[in-house]
Amino acid sequence: MISKTITLTGHNYIGTTPSAKGSTTFQTFNPQTNSNNPTVFHEASSEEINRAVALASSAFEQFKTIDGARKAAFLRAIAEEIMNLGDDLIDTYCSETGLPEGRAKGERGRTVFQLQSFADLVAEGAWVEATIDTAIPDRTPAPKPDLRRMNVPIGPVVVFGASNFPLAYSTAGGDTAAALAAGCPVIVKSHPMHAGTGELVASAISKAAQRTEMPEGVFSNLNSSGIEVGQQLVQHAQVKAVGFTGSIKGGRALLDLAAKRPEPIPVFAEMGSINPVILLPDALKTRGIELAKTYANSITLGTGQFCTNPGLLLAIEDPSLDAFINTLASELLEIAPSCMLHPNIKKAYDTNKERLTSQSEVTVIAEYTESLQTNYAGQVISKVTGSQFIANPTLHHEVFGPSSLIVVCKDKQELESVVANLEGQLTGTILGNNLEINEYNYLLSLLSNKVGRIIFNGVPTGVEVCPSMVHGGPYPSSTDARFSAVGTSSIKRWVRPFSYQNWPNELLPIELKNENSLGILRLVNNVLTNDHI
Amino acid sequence: MISKTITLTGHNYIGTTPSAKGSTTFQTFNPQTNSNNPTVFHEASSEEINRAVALASSAFEQFKTIDGARKAAFLRAIAEEIMNLGDDLIDTYCSETGLPEGRAKGERGRTVFQLQSFADLVAEGAWVEATIDTAIPDRTPAPKPDLRRMNVPIGPVVVFGASNFPLAYSTAGGDTAAALAAGCPVIVKSHPMHAGTGELVASAISKAAQRTEMPEGVFSNLNSSGIEVGQQLVQHAQVKAVGFTGSIKGGRALLDLAAKRPEPIPVFAEMGSINPVILLPDALKTRGIELAKTYANSITLGTGQFCTNPGLLLAIEDPSLDAFINTLASELLEIAPSCMLHPNIKKAYDTNKERLTSQSEVTVIAEYTESLQTNYAGQVISKVTGSQFIANPTLHHEVFGPSSLIVVCKDKQELESVVANLEGQLTGTILGNNLEINEYNYLLSLLSNKVGRIIFNGVPTGVEVCPSMVHGGPYPSSTDARFSAVGTSSIKRWVRPFSYQNWPNELLPIELKNENSLGILRLVNNVLTNDHI
Repeated sequence: MISKTITLTGHNYIGTTPSAKGSTTFQTFNPQTNSNNPTVFHEASSEEINRAVALASSAFEQFKTIDGARKAAFLRAIAEEIMNLGDDLIDTYCSETGLPEGRAKGERGRTVFQLQSFADLVAEGAWVEATIDTAIPDRTPAPKPDLRRMNVPIGPVVVFGASNFPLAYSTAGGDTAAALAAGCPVIVKSHPMHAGTGELVASAISKAAQRTEMPEGVFSNLNSSGIEVGQQLVQHAQVKAVGFTGSIKGGRALLDLAAKRPEPIPVFAEMGSINPVILLPDALKTRGIELAKTYANSITLGTGQFCTNPGLLLAIEDPSLDAFINTLASELLEIAPSCMLHPNIKKAYDTNKERLTSQSEVTVIAEYTESLQTNYAGQVISKVTGSQFIANPTLHHEVFGPSSLIVVCKDKQELESVVANLEGQLTGTILGNNLEINEYNYLLSLLSNKVGRIIFNGVPTGVEVCPSMVHGGPYPSSTDARFSAVGTSSIKRWVRPFSYQNWPNELLPIELKNENSLGILRLVNNVLTNDHI
Repeated sequence: MISKTITLTGHNYIGTTPSAKGSTTFQTFNPQTNSNNPTVFHEASSEEINRAVALASSAFEQFKTIDGARKAAFLRAIAEEIMNLGDDLIDTYCSETGLPEGRAKGERGRTVFQLQSFADLVAEGAWVEATIDTAIPDRTPAPKPDLRRMNVPIGPVVVFGASNFPLAYSTAGGDTAAALAAGCPVIVKSHPMHAGTGELVASAISKAAQRTEMPEGVFSNLNSSGIEVGQQLVQHAQVKAVGFTGSIKGGRALLDLAAKRPEPIPVFAEMGSINPVILLPDALKTRGIELAKTYANSITLGTGQFCTNPGLLLAIEDPSLDAFINTLASELLEIAPSCMLHPNIKKAYDTNKERLTSQSEVTVIAEYTESLQTNYAGQVISKVTGSQFIANPTLHHEVFGPSSLIVVCKDKQELESVVANLEGQLTGTILGNNLEINEYNYLLSLLSNKVGRIIFNGVPTGVEVCPSMVHGGPYPSSTDARFSAVGTSSIKRWVRPFSYQNWPNELLPIELKNENSLGILRLVNNVLTNDHI
């Protein structure tokens, strides 16, 4: 954890050019040492913001025409340059998050894997969903024209990095990788809590862009400690879409701002979720103790700072539920508390936890309170009845951190009512035995309406990066349930379909030409084929 | 045009139940006879709206589980019942629109074709984009779960019928057909100008729903003459998406309303477009006269009441452009004027035409003014220079009707500036010869950014219903360029991806089970295959 070879400068990247014109400055904070990190970051000035967007807009004209092989080379070069940052990246990450080295390396691995996945996707090429209907000149009453359609990039995208994933959901994270793969220039509004990590990753992207001769402005990285830089970006006429990972309040504010523009633009925000877990009676009877141990770990994983943290456990009252709760309580208190990302996050956790546990109907079951280190979070589980939960909207709010609320329902019907009254969620989990689950069809149907992903006998924490993953869901877990933030399908957020009618073959993009020189699967006259026309 | 066998009643359909509780009434209008049609329509009351939505919401729980074969049977039954309405439908259509019988029959054919296309799509089944990644239990550091993903319906959809397509974009039009195919119940806010046509089609859908035993509430049809019914529908918590075809003002109002909800919902509105047509110099020289004749017809087709009407002709000054304009003017005046859909539409046309032609820089080239019948539109073409066009935003507004503005640019660069200054459009057209088009790469790139479909040597009027069609485009031509309103891909507006993790095979939907009994193409561990697992 020593020997810095790269010196952080605190500047923005306007394209590949370092720039520090703004007079507002800030520092990041090490929650483990409870002290500021040394680098002084310069918030992007209004002029720097405009320059980054203008560069992105002009880069778009060239970038949108760059073929899949070159985009793939760019994405792979980013992954390589991130690895080339070596321990400097890991050290900076840890100093800005309080997270352990293993987590930093794991998240770096995931970030690199995501970049490579998108590189593979665009190198192969079929992701554009080429669709061709050839002409029928002698059709009556009117000839049918030749029509050819594919996905094209939507334009410059602004990405807001997440506080809780400084690598995988930030500067070169899923949103950025997907947008660059699509052919959209990216302007990152770096998260102020890990601006140093952001600067290092931005330097890697900048090097990769130069190495692979991408147009200047294909990527910029802007610092800020407040909300103004983000607001100006989202309102800029040349910005065509927004990606965000964070709180409901932050995501909704950006959504509202984008909706009020003269030209409204799409915002994909992945926001809050309490990820309900339903414990069915037979599973509680036969596996309650084991499940309690598993869930004590899931609740405290990453200090509860995951979007998929299980914040809500739902069950029907029964002695086996009492046994589960007792074991969960004792297991939870066995786990050593860990550090939160930032004093502000710790403060919010304490405030939200206090708001929850101070509700008159809430009983605290177990709370870790003894001699907590500064910025460390004490895990807590509490309990209410189903009818109490339904009646009090405060109980439905996310407590970001290692907190879970157990809702004890008097019967199946009350359990159904609780689920019917939930807001939209990223995930829903059923812990049940194979035979009993058939009795809960209606409950499953209700739960399905509320979530993007449904899990059987597992934990919601852990998000696979693969084509079948959905990380998103009904509002407020995301702003648009029709898209996912994770997996290669997340590229769909940044593309639009585009149709060429009677276009000369030599002027068509390579994916739509008769020759099909890429050999990609295309839907030609309603048949999927790799053939040429 | 006589012998009505079906009597219009003026009621709403709340599910399959006729209902006329509202005290506000209105009549439709025959613009050809300039008189009211006899039926008195009852505007839906607040209670009827709530009942329709509650029915749709409860129908959704059942409808979302109905398999593709049964949904296909429902869609085909709708098509059959529409044909069974026979001449009553055609007569009512004509009496409410002033459009000729041929157009009514053509549009009916298209409506039926759309329903059948969606029936084919869901009967086949691969549209759900089934994507499966099987488990890797021994993966390190953590096992990979089994993940399976498919598209599922988003929930009850409200559809606002278009004034200009009483069949193909209204009650059982593209939005409704796509939503029902997806598994979403539909509540139509019937267009007041053709409420009778809407009632007849609603009766056909109602019969089809009963014949094929669809859940009650899968479809409702609500009348209104004002904006309140639509506002209440869009704000209703149980409504999950909105489809709209109409004006920018109307679509934007609904978008804003939906964005302000506690739970914002997606609105796909297909709105205004002036559909720029670029005439390149060599084409003007060699084919100018022929093009002028073609465009005189395109401008006046359907009294200019198409979303794809060519409202803007762009060219570089040249004697051959003058010849084109002269021919276009004389050809245009040869065409007999035709009736508009409604006195209000005629009034709006006259107002907008007057606003355009009264701008000091606009020169009227040709205008049909002599002895127009009541509600008939006089076609007009006018002219400005490129710099005048760029400077005056009023000239960029759609004039809904047979009006086209010719923008004479002094050179290629000014032509590029004009295109760069356009708002988003459904279509862009290039009239050029094969050799000259290579000189206009930058112009084509700029035009591509502005449109959903680009046409070479054709007319924008005429929208094919096929997989490769895009009918949509950057704002304000639509509210979300990432979707199309026409073609089977338009189903994507009403679905969301949903992921099952470690779900028992027997509980999975048929599309995701190991057996693949539908034999659909699925992406299994990154390989497209019809095989079972």
